[in-house]
Amino acid sequence: MKARQIVEEMDSYVPGRSQDEIAQDFGLKKEDIIKLGSNENPWGPSPKAMKAIGEEISSINRYPESQLHELVSEIARYSGVDDSQVIIGGDGADEIIDVLAKTFIDNGDEFIVPLPSYMYYEYLLKQYGAKAVYARWDLDENKLDVQSIYDKISPKTKMIFLCSPNNPTGTLIDKEVLSDIASKNPEVLIVIDEAYFEYSEVTNRDLINEFDNIFIIRTMSKVLGLAGMRVGYGLACEEIIEYMHRIKPVFSLTRLSFAAALNTFRDTEYIEESIRKGIESRQYLYDEISKIDDLHVFPSKSNFMLIDIRKTGFTAAELTLKLMKKGVIVRDCTSFKGLDEYWIRISICTMEDNKRFIEILKEVLS
Amino acid sequence: MKARQIVEEMDSYVPGRSQDEIAQDFGLKKEDIIKLGSNENPWGPSPKAMKAIGEEISSINRYPESQLHELVSEIARYSGVDDSQVIIGGDGADEIIDVLAKTFIDNGDEFIVPLPSYMYYEYLLKQYGAKAVYARWDLDENKLDVQSIYDKISPKTKMIFLCSPNNPTGTLIDKEVLSDIASKNPEVLIVIDEAYFEYSEVTNRDLINEFDNIFIIRTMSKVLGLAGMRVGYGLACEEIIEYMHRIKPVFSLTRLSFAAALNTFRDTEYIEESIRKGIESRQYLYDEISKIDDLHVFPSKSNFMLIDIRKTGFTAAELTLKLMKKGVIVRDCTSFKGLDEYWIRISICTMEDNKRFIEILKEVLS
Repeated sequence: MKARQIVEEMDSYVPGRSQDEIAQDFGLKKEDIIKLGSNENPWGPSPKAMKAIGEEISSINRYPESQLHELVSEIARYSGVDDSQVIIGGDGADEIIDVLAKTFIDNGDEFIVPLPSYMYYEYLLKQYGAKAVYARWDLDENKLDVQSIYDKISPKTKMIFLCSPNNPTGTLIDKEVLSDIASKNPEVLIVIDEAYFEYSEVTNRDLINEFDNIFIIRTMSKVLGLAGMRVGYGLACEEIIEYMHRIKPVFSLTRLSFAAALNTFRDTEYIEESIRKGIESRQYLYDEISKIDDLHVFPSKSNFMLIDIRKTGFTAAELTLKLMKKGVIVRDCTSFKGLDEYWIRISICTMEDNKRFIEILKEVLS
Repeated sequence: MKARQIVEEMDSYVPGRSQDEIAQDFGLKKEDIIKLGSNENPWGPSPKAMKAIGEEISSINRYPESQLHELVSEIARYSGVDDSQVIIGGDGADEIIDVLAKTFIDNGDEFIVPLPSYMYYEYLLKQYGAKAVYARWDLDENKLDVQSIYDKISPKTKMIFLCSPNNPTGTLIDKEVLSDIASKNPEVLIVIDEAYFEYSEVTNRDLINEFDNIFIIRTMSKVLGLAGMRVGYGLACEEIIEYMHRIKPVFSLTRLSFAAALNTFRDTEYIEESIRKGIESRQYLYDEISKIDDLHVFPSKSNFMLIDIRKTGFTAAELTLKLMKKGVIVRDCTSFKGLDEYWIRISICTMEDNKRFIEILKEVLS
């Protein structure tokens, strides 16, 4: 069978290694591994979410509800928007991006993304025949090169992806910049990825009332502690949400993900505590890494930070491997377009793991 | 924002009612409702699956593994195929169908489906610009009208969907018919939906070694008792599986779905018992409904059966509402293309609920 031309031209699939395999390869205990690679909440899920899952386990032989009114309302309350401005994704924000593409992208459309930024936009959109056009994140200033966005807009531009705080650079895009781009390009959908907004204590959600071409992506995989349950959501004007519902997978949110999500949003104490501890952890890591001569760490409004390691003499692949052998997983950023082979990204962790990580890092670099 | 032409032309989204809302509307207790509408396993999930979920709950703040070797191997063992012939879907079989479409369907391609059959193929494929071409299920004989498939094949045909046992008619398609269609149409992908194969004790999985244009869809939502966890899988030659992996969502299976799936496949006793009780329940319902003069029930190789109700004087919508008021949910088949407004479909249930259902049914019809 011949696949579509787009699929034929894609790279072959190479399966990754599991954490069990990594642990085995390096003679580590799985529970001793310090995970600084995936920007998760290191303090675990909400206790209320765990309890709710326990109460729902015996019903998993039943299909999920096809609509999710209760959860939609809870998200609307949390986000300060109307129920009609919310859509839920059953595979985290990834499903939201996929449904966005399926709703708006025709073969041959272009989308703009500054580099470096989150790579999954491109992975998904090219499946729909869209072409990536790259703008620029200014690494010297650690801010978006706004002019580079305007320079790349063409009649074919359908979407612009702007991650704020940006992954992997960690800083925000000014709200004025976002609303300017939206108002000057009413035919282009401005997709603002707020996966990490809680850590920045800034949101652009009020812009969806002002503009019908702004879409905000959110996720429960970061501060909300549900990466393993795959819950994301999107905020936009009612018209966009209604279009997306026409083609959204009907049952993609599992029964247990529903229970976990609902009860996490209701656990205000857990959320506030996770943000507070996250910001404290970020400050500690930034301060400690700043003291290491050969590393240049970027200040961050998120739960991760980008580190320029070129002065160490190691490539990111080499340093990542050295850390892995000592049980620390960090993100080698070589695969981020727009970064060379001398960058790593680390996530916040518990203070205990932070301290162990800093010790191991110093040991490896000495 | 203008959506794609295909989306603009789709019906507007109308949110459904939840079971809570149904219970409230009809003054019912949610736990008293007899669910005969969704072809689930009425005896609950595997106890081993529930235990495994419990042990994994505290890790749901962590992303799932991106590859699923252990589960792939377990599915390969269960299915009698090679690891390289398996792909897993994180939104049940629905994700498998979506990824199939994304891999093979170009705008303007045609696919064939006999009517009546499962409607979700069309819902998904038309999103990719494919056109549905309808063949015929012979309701008088309750078998596939094979000639009607051959009559509809054109140079534009990319896929043929054949559900066996067929939903909602309940009977099988002969393996010779399937291999004949595959061998005479090497450029067409023959998609055999075996969602219910366990209840028929027949599979076509050996055909994937013979033909590189046969794809088998399976699900854990039926006999395997995990409808709420959204796990499906597909079996095909290595080439097809590799193409699909190139574009498959990376993290769509939740951590708890993974644990539940793995431990269900390992619970042979649960699976065998579920099949045995399912077949017994099916026989009971068939025998009892056959005794009711105004109903014509189809024999079934699945966990549901189709009933022609025209002699009762009620439409399916009317009868469904009457049953709902008494706490019984059955499937009104009016929305199945190829059926008129006089068909309902019922799923097997526990013997206790079967007996209550038969009593209520007689009461409503008397």
